[in-house]
Amino acid sequence: MNTITLQSPFDMHLHLRDGEMLQNVIEYTASCFSAALVMPNLNPPIFDVQSALAYKQRILQASQSKDFEPLMSLYLNENLNKEELQTAKNNGIFILKLYPKGSTTGSENGVSEILSPKILEILEIAQEIGMILSIHGESNGFVLEREVEFHPIFEYLATNFPKLKIIFEHLSDRRSITLVEKYENLFATLTLHHISLNLDNVIGDMLNPHYFCKPILKTKKDQESLLQIALNAHKKFSFGSDSAPHPKINKESKKGAAGIFSAPILLPALAQIFDTHNALENLESFVSLNASQIYNLPRTNKQITLIKKPMQIKEELSGIVPMFAGNTLEWSLA
Amino acid sequence: MNTITLQSPFDMHLHLRDGEMLQNVIEYTASCFSAALVMPNLNPPIFDVQSALAYKQRILQASQSKDFEPLMSLYLNENLNKEELQTAKNNGIFILKLYPKGSTTGSENGVSEILSPKILEILEIAQEIGMILSIHGESNGFVLEREVEFHPIFEYLATNFPKLKIIFEHLSDRRSITLVEKYENLFATLTLHHISLNLDNVIGDMLNPHYFCKPILKTKKDQESLLQIALNAHKKFSFGSDSAPHPKINKESKKGAAGIFSAPILLPALAQIFDTHNALENLESFVSLNASQIYNLPRTNKQITLIKKPMQIKEELSGIVPMFAGNTLEWSLA
Repeated sequence: MNTITLQSPFDMHLHLRDGEMLQNVIEYTASCFSAALVMPNLNPPIFDVQSALAYKQRILQASQSKDFEPLMSLYLNENLNKEELQTAKNNGIFILKLYPKGSTTGSENGVSEILSPKILEILEIAQEIGMILSIHGESNGFVLEREVEFHPIFEYLATNFPKLKIIFEHLSDRRSITLVEKYENLFATLTLHHISLNLDNVIGDMLNPHYFCKPILKTKKDQESLLQIALNAHKKFSFGSDSAPHPKINKESKKGAAGIFSAPILLPALAQIFDTHNALENLESFVSLNASQIYNLPRTNKQITLIKKPMQIKEELSGIVPMFAGNTLEWSLA
Repeated sequence: MNTITLQSPFDMHLHLRDGEMLQNVIEYTASCFSAALVMPNLNPPIFDVQSALAYKQRILQASQSKDFEPLMSLYLNENLNKEELQTAKNNGIFILKLYPKGSTTGSENGVSEILSPKILEILEIAQEIGMILSIHGESNGFVLEREVEFHPIFEYLATNFPKLKIIFEHLSDRRSITLVEKYENLFATLTLHHISLNLDNVIGDMLNPHYFCKPILKTKKDQESLLQIALNAHKKFSFGSDSAPHPKINKESKKGAAGIFSAPILLPALAQIFDTHNALENLESFVSLNASQIYNLPRTNKQITLIKKPMQIKEELSGIVPMFAGNTLEWSLA
């Protein structure tokens, strides 16, 4: 196969930032996906419906693609209540994003006690209303063990809120796969970078700050296990890029920012990987059907065609270094 | 105890570079140590005795401290022969440094087949002459497993050259400790950074390129095990800083260089660590007596006094970011 057409691709985990950065990055996603779940970790975070709707307007105004829908999320915080969550739902906002305090970029305002009565009360309401809970699941422990150390929280929530759909965001550790499979209401997103890179790409040779992200890239075995899940389009896993643009100067720094800017290359890179492993027939499930099922998202008629033709990736785009900068992909957008 | 005087400290693993960099860094070591083992990974490497002696002269000329001796080493390579090694020994050069090809900074010329007949022949001669073999022991595998994957080479060499003293340089993985203890002719050096930092300090929070080094910092458990070895002044372990200066611009880069510049703070930082753990009485063994025994090095009368008085570490020294930059140590040079 030298071309493939994907109907209604979804990116279920995306950072778009705001202002000039938003202007610079929006079209990479808007031109290729029918919808994307936009993360609320701005500064200040998107704490309420009003901010979410205003942000959505800014995104729509920044985008030239009229067939793209930003799916908004609320940053889980103690000020949320039933009225606000119901208003959210009525306005098409059905994702609550939980950041444990200090876990990643923009998590300074995150939840410090996830199992506190106040947070559990909010989750009870979210379950009742039919919202979805997306979690950045990492402890504050040793960097390579953080995801696994967070498993008990997932288990507690999945057990105690059996009707709440919970998303294990950017799953990175192969030991998390069985956990997702164990609970009917637990699902996950997978990024391009966690299925195509591992810790060697960050610290194995020279230090590569552009592949530094949270959760940190794990071992080759983890990468390989996650890749198999993607290639098989495992129905509990949908694609979420976690594309996170940071100015080059903030990455190549004495305090390098965490995040990989993958938006400019997502579908061609996925096509190449699935093609290499003779799994192109599963790509549409991974990037569209699974998310449609898990999030109850209507698919649109948007079609993206990819072609097996070299695509040279620039070293820099608007002052941001994209994933695979300087390399050539075998596939490109038609 | 508020002061401690150390007689004849040795740094058994040091990078001094050459030219302007040498001028900028030499005095940090020369003022505090009676001798230091200088690594031969210049560009081009120190392949022969003539280069080593010329380099020694440049070091001596750069240094203001007349009571400092640079101990020179030869970069293990296939052009060495009995005559050259004997000449080395006659000129006080008794260290052969083995870099597996591609393992770290300046290892492009390293040995690709360590157990080849040619290399084994050179090691046979080294054993006969009574030289010491220092090894950067890392495989080309996954970054966190490289040291352990190299164990079989150490075992082969320790077994087949029972009279050759072999040094496991900058030991970083707790699983290597028992290996060193197992073979009578196997010893090791420990760095300040591997006993005081772990991988969380590199990639646990923001990315810190100034703590990126090879071998990579390992887990907290590894750090703790290595620290205990140092605090107990285990007789098979001597101090070797592996201080490696790189211009800030080469560290905060899209291809960050590996190495930590610890020379400006070594003895005060060690005093603080040993003091904190009530082990100051073992510090002289760790930084002097052990090396004297292992390398058969005569101790000199050079005395360095440290005092429990705050020492502010600058953010930058001659364009290089030192270890613990911007922090304050509790101990300083008197």
